[in-house]
Amino acid sequence: MCSRPEPPEPLRRVAVVGGTHGNEMSGVCLARYWLRAPGELQRPSFSAVPVLANPAATAACRRYVDCDLNRAFTSAFLTARAHPDDPYEVTRARELNQLLGPKASGQAFDFVLDLHNTTASMGTCLVAESSHDVFAMHLCHHLQLQSPELPCRVFLYQLPGEESYSVHSVAKSGLGLELGPQPQGVLRADLLARMRALVAAALDFIQLFNQGPGGRDGLRHQASHTGTAFPAFEMEAYRKVSSVDFPRTETGDLAGTVHPQLQDRDFEPLRPGAPIFQMFGGKDVLYEGESTVYPVFINEAAYYEKGIAFFQTEKLTFSVPALPGLAPAPSPAP
Amino acid sequence: MCSRPEPPEPLRRVAVVGGTHGNEMSGVCLARYWLRAPGELQRPSFSAVPVLANPAATAACRRYVDCDLNRAFTSAFLTARAHPDDPYEVTRARELNQLLGPKASGQAFDFVLDLHNTTASMGTCLVAESSHDVFAMHLCHHLQLQSPELPCRVFLYQLPGEESYSVHSVAKSGLGLELGPQPQGVLRADLLARMRALVAAALDFIQLFNQGPGGRDGLRHQASHTGTAFPAFEMEAYRKVSSVDFPRTETGDLAGTVHPQLQDRDFEPLRPGAPIFQMFGGKDVLYEGESTVYPVFINEAAYYEKGIAFFQTEKLTFSVPALPGLAPAPSPAP
Repeated sequence: MCSRPEPPEPLRRVAVVGGTHGNEMSGVCLARYWLRAPGELQRPSFSAVPVLANPAATAACRRYVDCDLNRAFTSAFLTARAHPDDPYEVTRARELNQLLGPKASGQAFDFVLDLHNTTASMGTCLVAESSHDVFAMHLCHHLQLQSPELPCRVFLYQLPGEESYSVHSVAKSGLGLELGPQPQGVLRADLLARMRALVAAALDFIQLFNQGPGGRDGLRHQASHTGTAFPAFEMEAYRKVSSVDFPRTETGDLAGTVHPQLQDRDFEPLRPGAPIFQMFGGKDVLYEGESTVYPVFINEAAYYEKGIAFFQTEKLTFSVPALPGLAPAPSPAP
Repeated sequence: MCSRPEPPEPLRRVAVVGGTHGNEMSGVCLARYWLRAPGELQRPSFSAVPVLANPAATAACRRYVDCDLNRAFTSAFLTARAHPDDPYEVTRARELNQLLGPKASGQAFDFVLDLHNTTASMGTCLVAESSHDVFAMHLCHHLQLQSPELPCRVFLYQLPGEESYSVHSVAKSGLGLELGPQPQGVLRADLLARMRALVAAALDFIQLFNQGPGGRDGLRHQASHTGTAFPAFEMEAYRKVSSVDFPRTETGDLAGTVHPQLQDRDFEPLRPGAPIFQMFGGKDVLYEGESTVYPVFINEAAYYEKGIAFFQTEKLTFSVPALPGLAPAPSPAP
């Protein structure tokens, strides 16, 4: 994913993707609903396209059929010659790259919003590759301001030097919405409503951006106060540092599980010496790191097979530069 | 399942089954642990056998591979001639019927405890076929008395005239433990501890029964007070009446989900006119029955494919007769 080039252009080609993981039901059901009734995704300056990313996994109500689609958007997969034995999700990643990309090209979609659920107690989490996607950071800031009473954290998942691999990395800018806790295969009304409100607010923000300084929307007070459409701000985020696996037996079975004092404590500080696992035999395993970390995705069902009981993140604050507004639209004829 | 015959005999052949559904992790992990360290399942008068019921589904962390094992213990499946194309779970049901049964025979295990989780907010639920299994009802009563501060409801799942089909129906007596909410594929320490304590209490009860009136366990005060080993009592339970499907589109997709006012309200009264579903289009669907029911398994992930959003139950109270104690053991030689 690259930052939006200068000079900025309106975002016309926007997609809202659900069912990247076929058992994360908020996005699955919203995408299916919007495919029948897309009116909710329309704004004056653009119409977002609903996409059901993984139809086969969605039909089977599984995360994936052959491999994790949301790890398949790498150049190795996208550029290799197609083969009949390719995993279903690799083929599907190429199709989505044609639809929404090609990745890193000028033809790529302007923005992709990708809808996820987690079994972890993540609340509302905004998932971005890194802080370099300035448009996405401004969108995060906007979403945080919409519901200041609800925590809405930003998680930066890309490790240094790591190639981007997510579905939203295909577009020029993108963001994942991660809502939890919700069991796989279950659709909770409360999370559905929250997801829907976040998508609406995100599309409103894109509309706001597209309107340019000439827009008459009342929300444009930021511009009139500062002379910049979207001024710089300080952002707090949680950046992935590493992952921690469950304790296991010599044959790979679980030998313990997440400690009750860590369970459901996503984004809270984990200090050296605090318990992280409870062994089936009764003993506690303590966190032996030297500095405080902030665990996220604690006890996410889909990560057992990846060898991840939780991610360790560092909490950081950084400056996000102003987002230049569009050139004022020509005044309408009197 | 038949009630235990008179005169009562001690229960020597007892099994604790986990992984009947391969993604219900409390039982999966306990069964695996006990297969390595069975000491926790031993009592003076018997040693319960740990069984991992569905190894293939457990390895894949799925409910089942081909079909639901916990619906496969019917005479049609158990007595049909084996065929190489049989579903995996049908073959496995026959194997378990050999190990724990044969069903309805004198050779069957005395008692099977089967460990389950649900994504519904069922708390601690004891699942019995019907009120006719007097030993199981006494066990339920015992478990309820162990932790009076925690609700511990009894769910009777057999519809009138329905053949028994569960794994524990193979034994002379049996019970399912259903703990939730826990997402599929997730092991929560709190539910694991609760499941383990319930199993321990169940085995203690069987030991208590086996000891007979000559037992010197302090818990036998019931016998000394009443002259009957396990006196009659009144039991409250929730009996399945019918199921209710989600609202769906003409193609079978979900058109709405469980209403926020019903979600997480398992075992609470649902009165005529109360909302049960929220349509994606915004409207509420109301409960149109004429009498109050008690929904259970509300929004259980595994039941979407069965066309079940929740079960309607009726709450009933009935008398459970005394459980005759064993004949006093001969006094030990002086």
